[in-house]
Amino acid sequence: MKNIKFFALMFLFCGAAWSQQVKNKAEIDAKVSELLSKMTLEEKVGQMTQITVTNFEDTKKPGYFDAVKLKQGIQDYHIGSILNVPNPGAPTTKRWQETMTAIANEANKTRLKIPVLYGIDAIHGASYTAGATFFPQQIGLAATFNTELVKRGAEISAYETRASSIPWIFSPDLDFPRNPAWSRMWESFGEDAYLSSKMAVALVDGFEGNNVGSKYSVASCMKHYIGYGSTTTGKDRTPSIIPERILRQYDLTIYQAAIKAGAKGVMVSSGEINGTPVHASKHLITDILKKELGFSGVVVTDWKDIIYLNTRHKVAETKRDAVRIAVMAGIDMSMVPEEFSFYTDLVDLVKKGEVPMSRIDDAVTRILRMKYELNLFQTTVADLKDYPKFGSQEHIQEAYNTAAESITLLKNNNAVLPLNKTEKILVTGATANSMKYLNGGWSYTWQGENSDTYAADKFTILEAFQNKLGKENVLYTAGADLEKEDDAEIQKAVELAKSASKIVLCLGEKNYTETPGDISDLYMSASQIKLALALAKLNKPIILVLNEGRPRLISNFEDKMNAVVQCYLPGNEGARALVDILYGDVNPSGRLPYNYPRYPNSLEKYNRKYTESISEGEQNNDAKYEKSYLPQFEFGTGLSYTTFSYSNLKIDKTEINKTDEINVSVDISNTGKVQGKESVLLYLSDNFASITPEVKALKRFEKIDLKPNETKTVKFTLNQKDLQFVNEDLKWISEKGTFTIQIGDQKKDFLLK
Amino acid sequence: MKNIKFFALMFLFCGAAWSQQVKNKAEIDAKVSELLSKMTLEEKVGQMTQITVTNFEDTKKPGYFDAVKLKQGIQDYHIGSILNVPNPGAPTTKRWQETMTAIANEANKTRLKIPVLYGIDAIHGASYTAGATFFPQQIGLAATFNTELVKRGAEISAYETRASSIPWIFSPDLDFPRNPAWSRMWESFGEDAYLSSKMAVALVDGFEGNNVGSKYSVASCMKHYIGYGSTTTGKDRTPSIIPERILRQYDLTIYQAAIKAGAKGVMVSSGEINGTPVHASKHLITDILKKELGFSGVVVTDWKDIIYLNTRHKVAETKRDAVRIAVMAGIDMSMVPEEFSFYTDLVDLVKKGEVPMSRIDDAVTRILRMKYELNLFQTTVADLKDYPKFGSQEHIQEAYNTAAESITLLKNNNAVLPLNKTEKILVTGATANSMKYLNGGWSYTWQGENSDTYAADKFTILEAFQNKLGKENVLYTAGADLEKEDDAEIQKAVELAKSASKIVLCLGEKNYTETPGDISDLYMSASQIKLALALAKLNKPIILVLNEGRPRLISNFEDKMNAVVQCYLPGNEGARALVDILYGDVNPSGRLPYNYPRYPNSLEKYNRKYTESISEGEQNNDAKYEKSYLPQFEFGTGLSYTTFSYSNLKIDKTEINKTDEINVSVDISNTGKVQGKESVLLYLSDNFASITPEVKALKRFEKIDLKPNETKTVKFTLNQKDLQFVNEDLKWISEKGTFTIQIGDQKKDFLLK
Repeated sequence: MKNIKFFALMFLFCGAAWSQQVKNKAEIDAKVSELLSKMTLEEKVGQMTQITVTNFEDTKKPGYFDAVKLKQGIQDYHIGSILNVPNPGAPTTKRWQETMTAIANEANKTRLKIPVLYGIDAIHGASYTAGATFFPQQIGLAATFNTELVKRGAEISAYETRASSIPWIFSPDLDFPRNPAWSRMWESFGEDAYLSSKMAVALVDGFEGNNVGSKYSVASCMKHYIGYGSTTTGKDRTPSIIPERILRQYDLTIYQAAIKAGAKGVMVSSGEINGTPVHASKHLITDILKKELGFSGVVVTDWKDIIYLNTRHKVAETKRDAVRIAVMAGIDMSMVPEEFSFYTDLVDLVKKGEVPMSRIDDAVTRILRMKYELNLFQTTVADLKDYPKFGSQEHIQEAYNTAAESITLLKNNNAVLPLNKTEKILVTGATANSMKYLNGGWSYTWQGENSDTYAADKFTILEAFQNKLGKENVLYTAGADLEKEDDAEIQKAVELAKSASKIVLCLGEKNYTETPGDISDLYMSASQIKLALALAKLNKPIILVLNEGRPRLISNFEDKMNAVVQCYLPGNEGARALVDILYGDVNPSGRLPYNYPRYPNSLEKYNRKYTESISEGEQNNDAKYEKSYLPQFEFGTGLSYTTFSYSNLKIDKTEINKTDEINVSVDISNTGKVQGKESVLLYLSDNFASITPEVKALKRFEKIDLKPNETKTVKFTLNQKDLQFVNEDLKWISEKGTFTIQIGDQKKDFLLK
Repeated sequence: MKNIKFFALMFLFCGAAWSQQVKNKAEIDAKVSELLSKMTLEEKVGQMTQITVTNFEDTKKPGYFDAVKLKQGIQDYHIGSILNVPNPGAPTTKRWQETMTAIANEANKTRLKIPVLYGIDAIHGASYTAGATFFPQQIGLAATFNTELVKRGAEISAYETRASSIPWIFSPDLDFPRNPAWSRMWESFGEDAYLSSKMAVALVDGFEGNNVGSKYSVASCMKHYIGYGSTTTGKDRTPSIIPERILRQYDLTIYQAAIKAGAKGVMVSSGEINGTPVHASKHLITDILKKELGFSGVVVTDWKDIIYLNTRHKVAETKRDAVRIAVMAGIDMSMVPEEFSFYTDLVDLVKKGEVPMSRIDDAVTRILRMKYELNLFQTTVADLKDYPKFGSQEHIQEAYNTAAESITLLKNNNAVLPLNKTEKILVTGATANSMKYLNGGWSYTWQGENSDTYAADKFTILEAFQNKLGKENVLYTAGADLEKEDDAEIQKAVELAKSASKIVLCLGEKNYTETPGDISDLYMSASQIKLALALAKLNKPIILVLNEGRPRLISNFEDKMNAVVQCYLPGNEGARALVDILYGDVNPSGRLPYNYPRYPNSLEKYNRKYTESISEGEQNNDAKYEKSYLPQFEFGTGLSYTTFSYSNLKIDKTEINKTDEINVSVDISNTGKVQGKESVLLYLSDNFASITPEVKALKRFEKIDLKPNETKTVKFTLNQKDLQFVNEDLKWISEKGTFTIQIGDQKKDFLLK
């Protein structure tokens, strides 16, 4: 009874909220419609134009506006949006306030006083604002398997971004990397579409809240629609090959979830799929995204991507034709972003009838709607007094917690971890003493090269050790450069190691994003491998700490490491969390959100087909047919300092029909000696299907916290959608037959009749 | 006038030949129809059943039949086809004759006396017959860029196969590898679809001749329809992802050409495309292959592939259902091949109405037609007296010529080649002294492990050196194992090298095919890299000889090699040809039929898109956007001991309409000091297109022979098809705009109006 009452109340409450939303929507639609009717063609096309802020800079005073240039952009070209960071990068909230005030003042001088929409690549916190709280990059968020934690982090990021007077962020990244060498692997949620969907929703919910117009919310921008993360070679902005069936089965589901969660914006992929640049694809943008998925927000290009239809992709013979193609494909806003050719060309195209006004009105309606929803007609500049928690200890603690739940213990032979404070430790390795490698790209600047300046008060890995043990108790030398081989440094590390009882070896990658992060060889750099092999000869326990955006191969020395800890890019609080984990003050609970490959030409994903592996599936006596599916660490790997046992897997039906749900429960016990968190993962296998079935696919997860000897029952409900796949006719269908549920070491079959 | 008369005569002649063909076809159709009408269901299904010959073997006397088993197969199960090799592999023509006689005798005892069709994997000569002439494997044929030479080789292979009483070979391989790590890369013609098409036609023409029923011709079998060579990971028999647009643009064109040339059979890919196993795809087999391309020959499965629909691909819940799916998809013959379940299941499926008799009749009609066309109702066993040239010097010379034109000089710094007979040479490396590595797989046995026994009288690389210089004048030690590191052997090589003036270092791969050839790391094996680096320290000139089925990466030592010679798998005569090239007795003229990659995660093809490279295309000042397209050696690379210069590129029109052809001519001069052959390659670039254009694509080639100071004019005609590509609607179209023709260093533009 109690529960029923509760639900009834909830229903009433939700109903009330819903009707308020409908009312707000109608009000906004009316305002948009009225405003649109007053606009000239030029004002409309201006709204669709987005220019980078540095275009308006005073060349003699970087970071400050040239009033003439700003006036020209906003008054003459009627531009609707500005993006990016004033020089020299990462202003304070105060500087942002000044910048935004200048823009708002200029907009207020225009005929219709339409506010300018400011967008920014804030992707792990207000990452272009000095003093902001930095969370782990997305790949680390995925590793937490904790959507509540991720949502809270997004709320904080939204708060601190609005504190910077910025209402629109180019996040979340919904890319679905198929090649782990991709330079933006770490900006994604890894290789599983279900995990990515859940994390996408958590971020959108956190960013936008119940009311995106509140002063603590920002509009999100899903990116990069679609297929951007799947280039064949792994190089950034190179061609992807994704048949539509597969696009729908995986990539599209992530967007679908985020759109359902209310995502206001979407940025289009700079790449091509099957020979068609996405910016030129009416099928993908208008037919699927806008019509089929019902996306009613703003579709913005990526950097210069309309021009690139002409100069890079070569599908348009002129820049003008590129504008026509992109706008007719469904682009609403062009990140031009360094000149006004888009504006000039589009005005001309409409005047000559090559682009209909209806298309322009659709685009401008979407843009104005977002501005109203964001409440920009009321407020575009933050009142700093409203944001007392900006960069606060409370926020920092959340970032720490997220980092702590993301860090993933991949190997711990003979319980070499946790460390003991009495042991003499050598900290070494190229990533051991810089904030750059903890934060990666999109941190204060595009490539994140200034993290050590901006985050000078934060701890590097070395500093976190020193903070914990006292400076005098930590041995340190870099040991290796990220790229350059340095035998003298190796020798120094080897010598120091002789007086240590254990070695913490920090290897990884430089800070990077996009094309500067392209690699042609997935192996860890030779200089770092050399250090690892030299230290291994000492036969002292080595704890390998990985600090990297993608899984650089370690197979030529991994067997000589006693423990392996994956940090990903954990952000400003990451080193503290790491060191607390290494000493057992925090029990690790991250799980790997991708397969960590062993070899460069063996990049299978965990949800491979049976033909890629006989480890599960066909057992064939003919040894020559064995497949070499053998990742270094498999998706979902994540150890703890305690042990968990799974039992009592139950399902409420062993046969179901095509409308039934199926309820699943399983008991998890902490059978070890310390408290720990465990992500409970439910995998489903469709044992036979007309499209070759995956060996298994993640369908549900939940993270729980267990004290020693404590047991909890976790319940999941699977529905019909979980049994479906996309068939050759591009329809989601299920087929009769048996399915197998797997949670931990427990398995149960059921039959779909 | 003379020419006109000649063409008129040719026309009459061709016309007469044509009308004879039409008559023959009508006669055969009538015979097939009559025979079919007499057959029971069981006899029909038996025709569709192919069993491996070892199934009928006497377990006590390997290589000889168990009369009861053979009778059971042919009489009780009415089987229509047998494949593979009696134990212990590679019988003499005499033993083949005896084997075939036993089969023919058994078939003659059946009610309808339908001959059994024997098929075999003879892929570079009659490669399962002792004493046969072995040509280079297909990748080497492609490297010759000489279709006439390749056709003559195929004629010889057909001759020697029929001498072995075998009428049907599973060749040519029309796979189109997208990942150079694939274990059957060497069985293909490399990465270009046009080159593959031309070579496919040369092989089909050579195998089948004007009359496939002649005693010197065999029926071909294109394989593996379709997409088999394009697995994502490069591992054999794992999933391929190929959107239909791309399949049509490249892969399908190769089949189209071979079908037009008359190819009688096709073997289906063991893989899946986009989640659908090809053996289960009615769309690919019936709709496209049979209906759209008009293929009227026999569609045979690959090894056990109907059963694998159930056990590996898991698209069929039972073996019986797998039979239904495959037969309804359009399979005509099942390589079952180790039992009779296909026969039993299919008889039952037809009786129960799950497979219509019309489908069975279509399949059996195709099989009987091939048997009539092959004249098997008259003759199934060879009269050895008809084949005096089997394994003859004439044939061997053709194989030598082919190897000599395939071997590709990739690098020759400071003209270190040709060698001088007076120089002391060290020959070393793991592949220097075995016939196994020259022949590769499908040589005498499946994996080719017995080449040293069967081809004991042929020269290994070392033996070819010894033959040329005298045994006492060649230093040799293995230097390295293919896999196992051996410092003592390296030391031995280094010591020997000290008394040599040049080093010939032979590196490569073991013999392999299919799954046993799978690799996870494209780098050359560590043991061989170690040898190369050790020798390089001596600062003596090193000639690297590559003897490999696929391009194993050499970037960690290539800069220390003075010359690089790619042998591919040149066959039994390959070592002689190689050594003659190294000494300048033959001038090399092969060209690389694929991009030789530099790094394992950078596998771009030569006909990449502009977004993959700025080396041709957009020149962008923003250095950070440079792509890393940088193959070790690019497609088409091939040096000579002479030099060629290109001039006078002319086109007969600079503007064409949508029906025009365009005539191209170019002058090539031998500007060096020795005679040489040059493959003249014409590339076309479509400068803008609605599907992102390739940087360039090969459209024509011709190989010419030039004496020093000689100049020849080469003429090509491009037609409308050459300007077309497959658009999103799967149609071949061309679009208005400029195209660029490139031959050597010459370029010309024309406009399609």
